[in-house]
Parts: sequence; structure tokens; C-alpha cells
Amino acid sequence: MHLGRVKGTVVATVKSPGLEGIRFLVVQPLDRARKENGEAVVCADATLQAGVGELVYFVGGREAAVALPQEFVPVDHSVVGIVDQVEDL
Amino acid sequence: MHLGRVKGTVVATVKSPGLEGIRFLVVQPLDRARKENGEAVVCADATLQAGVGELVYFVGGREAAVALPQEFVPVDHSVVGIVDQVEDL
Amino acid sequence: MHLGRVKGTVVATVKSPGLEGIRFLVVQPLDRARKENGEAVVCADATLQAGVGELVYFVGGREAAVALPQEFVPVDHSVVGIVDQVEDL
Amino acid sequence: MHLGRVKGTVVATVKSPGLEGIRFLVVQPLDRARKENGEAVVCADATLQAGVGELVYFVGGREAAVALPQEFVPVDHSVVGIVDQVEDL
Amino acid sequence: MHLGRVKGTVVATVKSPGLEGIRFLVVQPLDRARKENGEAVVCADATLQAGVGELVYFVGGREAAVALPQEFVPVDHSVVGIVDQVEDL
Repeated sequence: MHLGRVKGTVVATVKSPGLEGIRFLVVQPLDRARKENGEAVVCADATLQAGVGELVYFVGGREAAVALPQEFVPVDHSVVGIVDQVEDL
Repeated sequence: MHLGRVKGTVVATVKSPGLEGIRFLVVQPLDRARKENGEAVVCADATLQAGVGELVYFVGGREAAVALPQEFVPVDHSVVGIVDQVEDL
Repeated sequence: MHLGRVKGTVVATVKSPGLEGIRFLVVQPLDRARKENGEAVVCADATLQAGVGELVYFVGGREAAVALPQEFVPVDHSVVGIVDQVEDL
Repeated sequence: MHLGRVKGTVVATVKSPGLEGIRFLVVQPLDRARKENGEAVVCADATLQAGVGELVYFVGGREAAVALPQEFVPVDHSVVGIVDQVEDL
Repeated sequence: MHLGRVKGTVVATVKSPGLEGIRFLVVQPLDRARKENGEAVVCADATLQAGVGELVYFVGGREAAVALPQEFVPVDHSVVGIVDQVEDL
């Protein structure tokens, strides 16, 4: 998983079957110092209702679809936790 | 998923079994400022009929094949949404 | 697998179903000279109880979930070994 | 999928079970301008018989094995199309 | 698959279930000119018994576990061939 900050949302009318009703967020990956690092990704958010500005962690690859109610959908990034705190020494 | 812009199409006569009849698009990944970022990928487009110049988002990896009618095909990038709008704060 | 050093822990109350009770660690990837290399990732640690400061190796992708007691969870990085020694010539 | 140019072949006597009789090609990824870009990968070529110098596209990850007659083999890159033409605007 | 050179071994006592008895190698990826390129990875070697200094190719991702006798193990890189010769034009 990677840490990221929710930056916005993506609106699409024409989508692949199975993606209806899923929120898609623009998430900016962060480094350990909470600086922006690398390119933003579009993450599905099926259950967390993460808001813009929140610190989250997200999964990539096949696991991303496991976070959705219906697993056989073409999704490769999902938000899976809203971060309360990182203890980084 | 990543944001990208459709740039063109790829024509191939000799293909792996299962890829007949699928459109393949050249898609240029974009950063949050809509600038080209990273190398273009070849994406399958099974159902969206995305046109050249359109803003899309695409999936990579195993999920890409899930976007196709027939799932057991060797495809690792698929266009899954045509973007109407990105709200990025 | 990649070598890394455990740097801290991530606390999240709102999580995807299936992630309750799993420890999440901040792990810094290392190069062969044990220097920090690339960005830290958030790894699940289901069974090793790796402590902050320990040298570990971790897996990414689908395999990460295989390291957990319950496999169908949205996890893409897991710590799978605590390193005693690396013989690197 | 990515565009690439076949550069050569790899000969290996000691291989994992399931890889006997499969051709392995050195494929150099190309950017949209057909310039070499990134590091060469070793791709399986089960059915296309792509020759040295040909322009191809290849898949990475789990999908690569789907291109082979026998799917449960440890292969993560496969050539899946010989490119006739790219229309890139 | 990628070309690499075996550089050493990793010793770990505390490991995820399923990893007992598997050799883990430090493998340095190489470019086409056989120069070191990118960061070393830790690869499982279930059946090849590749020695330090040997030129190999390895798979990453889900396929890596397919190279092992027992497939449901958290392994994401495996050595799958010992290279005799590369014909690269």
C-alpha cells in the first residue's frame, strides 16, 4: 500500500460494465515526509467515503478489486484505509 | 487507474489467439496538469469506442482483461472510462 | 521480494472490510548497500511481528495477500521474512 | 501492452518446469517515436514466431502466461502481436 | 522476464508459512550490455540451484509463485532459467 492524499474526483459517463455507482478519486501519492511524490492515480472508493484532503492508503493491482463489493470489475487502484496517524521514527 | 489521452491506433494482423476483433489504442498517460507524462501504452478498447483525442482512464495488469467480453486473453491495459470532468483541487 | 527496514506503523480506524486486526508497517526499501532507495511502502504484517528497525524482505502484488490468514483482502505489500544475514559478494 | 523491437534470443538449458520448447526473445521497449526506451525484457513467444528486427507489442504480468498454450507456467512477458502499422496523431 | 546476475543469498529464520526450505538469492538486474541496472531483488530459487555469479532470468509478480513446487506462497520473484547464451543483434 502507499500513502496518498485525496485531491479530487473523476466524473465519467461512459464506463466499462461494473463500474457504475463507484466513486473515483484523484489520489496524490506522498513520501514519508508527506511531500507529493510521483504521479496521481485514479482510485476507486467503494466503502470508505474518503473526502478531498484526507490522508489515505491505497492498494494497486489485482487487490484493488478485492476492496469492491463486486470483485470482477476492471479496477486497479482502491483506497482501503483513512489514516489517523503514522508513527514513523 | 491512470488518466490518459487517446493518440492513435495499432494495427496488427498476426496476434495471439483471443485478440481478434479488439481495438488497440495508443494512449499517452497524463499528469494532474494534463501534461504528457511517461511512455504511451497500448490499451485494448472493447466496449467504449473511445476516439482519438479523448481523455480516458485506463487500468493496467490483470484487471485489464476483466474489461473485455472474453476474460482469458493476454491483455494488460484497457480503457475503462471516458472522462467528462476531473475536479482536482 | 525486496529488502527493507521497518520504520514505523500506520494507524487507521476506517478500513476496508477484512483489514481489521492486521498490523501495517511503514517499510523503507533498501539497496544492496543497505542505503534507503525509493519510496516507503505500507506493508501488512500478519504473522512475523517485525519490530521497528528490523531488516525484512517483503512481497508486492497479489502474493502479498497470500501471506495473510484470510487471503481475499485488499493488501498488496506484506512483510514475509525477518532477515538474519545477507551474503552478498 | 507496450511497443517493442525484437533484438535477439535467449538460450537456456536449465529452466523451470513448463518452459521447455518455448522461444524467448530479447525485446527492447520503444517510445512513440520508435526510440529505444527503458530496459530490454525477455519475452516468451509461443505462437507468433516473431523475427529479429520486427516491431511487436507485448504484455507483462499474469496476462503473459495466458498467451501460452499451457497457462500455469512462470512467464511474465509475452509477445502478443506483430505490428503492421501504428497510426499515431 | 529480466536478465540478472546472482550476487548472494539471504538468510531468514522468521518467515511466512510456506517459505521454509526455499533458497532466496540476491539477484542484480542487468541491461542488454550486461551492466548492472536498477536495484537488486530477492528471488526464490526452488529448482534451478543457480550459483553465485551465474547469469539467469527471473520472473516477477504472480508468476513467480508458479515456479515453486507449492504455489500458494507469498513469493513475487523467482529465478526460472540459467542463461547459456544471449544472441542480441
